[in-house]
Amino acid sequence: MDRLRAHTASRDYDVLVGHECLGDLGAILRERLPHGQVVVCCDENVAPLYLPTVRESLEAAEYGVSQIVIPAGEMQKTLTRAEEIYGILYDRGLRRTDTLVALGGGVVGDLVGFVAATYQRGLRFVQAPTTLLAQVDASLGGKVGVHFRAGKNYVGSFYQPHVVCADIATLHSLPTCELRSGAAEVAKYGLAAGGSLLDAVECLARGPLEAERLDDSLVAGCMQRKLDVVALDEREETGARAVLNLGHTIGHAIEGATGFTRFTHGEAVALGLRAALWLSGRVCGLPPDQAARGLALLDGLGLPRRLTGVEPDEVCKLIRRDKKAGKDGVGYVLLRALGEPALGVPVPAALEREAVAWLTL
Amino acid sequence: MDRLRAHTASRDYDVLVGHECLGDLGAILRERLPHGQVVVCCDENVAPLYLPTVRESLEAAEYGVSQIVIPAGEMQKTLTRAEEIYGILYDRGLRRTDTLVALGGGVVGDLVGFVAATYQRGLRFVQAPTTLLAQVDASLGGKVGVHFRAGKNYVGSFYQPHVVCADIATLHSLPTCELRSGAAEVAKYGLAAGGSLLDAVECLARGPLEAERLDDSLVAGCMQRKLDVVALDEREETGARAVLNLGHTIGHAIEGATGFTRFTHGEAVALGLRAALWLSGRVCGLPPDQAARGLALLDGLGLPRRLTGVEPDEVCKLIRRDKKAGKDGVGYVLLRALGEPALGVPVPAALEREAVAWLTL
Repeated sequence: MDRLRAHTASRDYDVLVGHECLGDLGAILRERLPHGQVVVCCDENVAPLYLPTVRESLEAAEYGVSQIVIPAGEMQKTLTRAEEIYGILYDRGLRRTDTLVALGGGVVGDLVGFVAATYQRGLRFVQAPTTLLAQVDASLGGKVGVHFRAGKNYVGSFYQPHVVCADIATLHSLPTCELRSGAAEVAKYGLAAGGSLLDAVECLARGPLEAERLDDSLVAGCMQRKLDVVALDEREETGARAVLNLGHTIGHAIEGATGFTRFTHGEAVALGLRAALWLSGRVCGLPPDQAARGLALLDGLGLPRRLTGVEPDEVCKLIRRDKKAGKDGVGYVLLRALGEPALGVPVPAALEREAVAWLTL
Repeated sequence: MDRLRAHTASRDYDVLVGHECLGDLGAILRERLPHGQVVVCCDENVAPLYLPTVRESLEAAEYGVSQIVIPAGEMQKTLTRAEEIYGILYDRGLRRTDTLVALGGGVVGDLVGFVAATYQRGLRFVQAPTTLLAQVDASLGGKVGVHFRAGKNYVGSFYQPHVVCADIATLHSLPTCELRSGAAEVAKYGLAAGGSLLDAVECLARGPLEAERLDDSLVAGCMQRKLDVVALDEREETGARAVLNLGHTIGHAIEGATGFTRFTHGEAVALGLRAALWLSGRVCGLPPDQAARGLALLDGLGLPRRLTGVEPDEVCKLIRRDKKAGKDGVGYVLLRALGEPALGVPVPAALEREAVAWLTL
């Protein structure tokens, strides 16, 4: 089991990565959060796969354990669902020294994290991500929240977990579409970092996307990269954290415009990355061969190439509503070269629309 | 205008205290938060009194200004009301660089502060407290939130304001019951601090409770005391902040047991302070003459002496649910002597019940 260490202004915490480490969760918490009861939250898909292991491990460590199982899917990230969970915690008499475990993907992590951040102004919170996307991205860095209308994560907090426990063995149970969704974030790290991380992602893209082919060091390498960025800028105040938004400005707008249901987050991000590569060539001087290399990487991972059934103007309207937008629009993350991100790049509205329209061709 | 400075782990900010300073709010913000639009939130009682002055001042400073006016009263501190405000902000296209101003008492400050903390993971937030209670207590220190069922402030965050602007002239418009509610917190500071602060509160208690008799330095002295404590322990992690809870453990439970409507917060705290003085004599060795001096102070301020129409057991049940309760109950803040608080004092359940029952005699 690898142990990474997260450093943020509000909290430092351990990020544990390993095969079958969910079975050690009880012992892991016993060392770090010795008090209280533990409530494990997961969705209906994850419950039969990992809940028994997790409960057994926690009970062996002598925690009082209970569970909350919610329906699966992005549409669960609502204030209504958060309020329902508050009610369950209230009925169970949960206290601040008790612990919520988010077992599952990004939806459960974001929703349960928001509840943990706000119930009694903050419970103990453990992320146990079981998808590639949640492991390399969503479980790290403290962004928690729910959607509000078409606004992605419009209501939320920055709230760091107390522990992250990422069991790489869980990736073997993931459907390919979920692996692919995570692969889009892996590609993002590769495109932004270049060098050996990009090489490793390209190696992955040269064969079928299977959990067996996901190198542990590739997963841990992405995690470390995210932790490095968050350490510099926990609350998006200095701008350093913006690099994580490569592909996300247009990606989020595509998710909003399609009601958060048509594309997985990673698929939408992949389309956003394509648009970012297109824009980088026009605005930041990304050489055409490097843009082509980036597009080929996304193709190799089997990520979508076309945005259909959506009006480009609808996407552009939601870009204006991006949480990071100022009154003069969004500062884009683009690439001067692979591995050389440029932050806060202004993009004229006409060109932005052209980039989105290009995705629909 | 006096300028105090708040220092917390998450943010430092200015606390401005003066007569008629609401008329300078535009200039105050222009220096500190130069960007964006400003949304002023207040209740129906405060709107006719101060909203025109505030709007005029902000417009003179060339902000785009809009307003949200909600009904008055403690029952507004709900997730439903917060969600309604999210919707208004969404419709107005508010961005992170825009500012919410909470103009009013503790209810508006807590509710609007929670919205500011969570909308897009944090807007700019200004507290403009117009009650004694909000000025000396609620507007400072970053506790924001709403009630959930009978759980007082059960859903919330720690989110420091960017500026606090306390206009002491607004106290002249307060009904006596509101002044009295704030006076309970002033009494709390006096009892915990002793010395010249206690002398000043006793001086206040020797005459009728009127705004004219509230010394500026008494208000600023209470504020400074709160800021000193919060600087040591922003998120109730080290225990130092607990001293602010003198009288609040039983006070909060009384509020919950009476549906947050029968007593003002200060009235409930005053009953809690009486119980704390009673318990301090039994558990911490507070000399009887000092306990009597404390009770006389509360009487002099015209605060309630008796808890009627409530079952003591109901209050004790809610004490168990206090956010600060561990599995062995609540650690009480009591007094060894006036000006000598003791933190985290265990109180046997039977004695706790006896203290509450004493209030009903």
